[in-house]
Amino acid sequence: MKIDILTLFPEMFEGVLGASIVGKANHKGLVSFRVVNFRQFSENKHGQVDDMPYGGGGGMVLKPEPIFRAVESLVESVSAMEAEESLTSRPRVILLCPQGQRYSQKLAEELAQEKHLIFICGHYEGYDERIREHLVTDEISIGDYVLTGGELPAMVVIDSVVRLQEGALGNAQSAVTDSYSTGLLEHPHYTRPAEFRGWDVPEVLLSGHHENIEKWRLKESLRRTLERRPDLLNEIEQTPEIKKMVEELKQEL
Amino acid sequence: MKIDILTLFPEMFEGVLGASIVGKANHKGLVSFRVVNFRQFSENKHGQVDDMPYGGGGGMVLKPEPIFRAVESLVESVSAMEAEESLTSRPRVILLCPQGQRYSQKLAEELAQEKHLIFICGHYEGYDERIREHLVTDEISIGDYVLTGGELPAMVVIDSVVRLQEGALGNAQSAVTDSYSTGLLEHPHYTRPAEFRGWDVPEVLLSGHHENIEKWRLKESLRRTLERRPDLLNEIEQTPEIKKMVEELKQEL
Repeated sequence: MKIDILTLFPEMFEGVLGASIVGKANHKGLVSFRVVNFRQFSENKHGQVDDMPYGGGGGMVLKPEPIFRAVESLVESVSAMEAEESLTSRPRVILLCPQGQRYSQKLAEELAQEKHLIFICGHYEGYDERIREHLVTDEISIGDYVLTGGELPAMVVIDSVVRLQEGALGNAQSAVTDSYSTGLLEHPHYTRPAEFRGWDVPEVLLSGHHENIEKWRLKESLRRTLERRPDLLNEIEQTPEIKKMVEELKQEL
Repeated sequence: MKIDILTLFPEMFEGVLGASIVGKANHKGLVSFRVVNFRQFSENKHGQVDDMPYGGGGGMVLKPEPIFRAVESLVESVSAMEAEESLTSRPRVILLCPQGQRYSQKLAEELAQEKHLIFICGHYEGYDERIREHLVTDEISIGDYVLTGGELPAMVVIDSVVRLQEGALGNAQSAVTDSYSTGLLEHPHYTRPAEFRGWDVPEVLLSGHHENIEKWRLKESLRRTLERRPDLLNEIEQTPEIKKMVEELKQEL
């Protein structure tokens, strides 16, 4: 998978793209990154990439030319490389913005199938609407909060997509993340010491009784989900065991 | 405001905390950061911070001691500094995790009032439940997607909180971000050139007729909100002008 990032703050990406699972995926060749400062595509000798808004008002607006030209140069260079393999799939061009579709694990799984993603990160400026209308294929928002730019949202999307690439996670990681696949919030975890500052690990976990442990874990998963995210319960398959536990928990709450 | 971050990947934060508005806020003295690798608080000579889960199963679990000791050392060092000023407010200790409260602008505004925030970033491991029960004051999730660790969510929360500090934003930025305060999605922005590759800027924005421009912008804000986030409309004050426009837009859609 090829991932390109257009930003005015390339230095923000250095630590993140090199570290941990994303960094390892890069070293393993599962993913390759290009971080491009689109200021270099300005036609202006001062490297100007934004300008005042038509119609007046405060703030600056990112100009269309530098971003169109940057995306086109990235697509062309990839096309040239891939021409021999006749892989001419169009990249997804993703704009990170508060107006975008709410990001979800489902969208992460969809993007993880792509060969080429291009992220456009604006900062506090607005975008010229023609970028949105004629260049961008996806607008994504990672949540209802205001950030200073699209850089952190791009990192979030990249992280979630890269960890889904085959071979990106080691065994230790996959084992834990598998627990998400139940559709419930995770049960509590405990490790040594069995007593820490007077707080004990629940006895059942020390019992060695595998069936009771599984039952406890499922019930605590359900308890947490019921308390914090009852909406998730509607989306899972309700086995008779789960139904019974949910009834018990509702009595307790 | 003091912001401390506990992580096993301190290098991930370098680029982000030094750049842009967050970096400037730091230079201006509005906020100070400490990024602490809690491995240094391990009591184990190998620097071990995780261990196998009680009750069996895959994955590793972060041990309680190193994280308790790291947080306590950060709180103590701040208390010593603040003792003279008798500012002994307890810090918020924030765990980034999928089970947490959904992050929102409202929570950002609340956290922005605090003097001291401590972020605990786990990675693919689970957390010993006693950390959650006896140390953490807030559990936060930035959205329903799976990430490889708490580092990116911590950066997201920090970015949203720092930009709310008085003096963090320059005039150019505040002007744009003010538009969020309407509670609607932003209207389209345009800048030069008036024609780009055959795509024109809407005529009204070139007219110089201020009242028509304001009307167009409000209507386009409402259109986008209606199309993409109709839920937001319920939360704003519906003036007669807005009500009329919404009716017109519903006819058009």
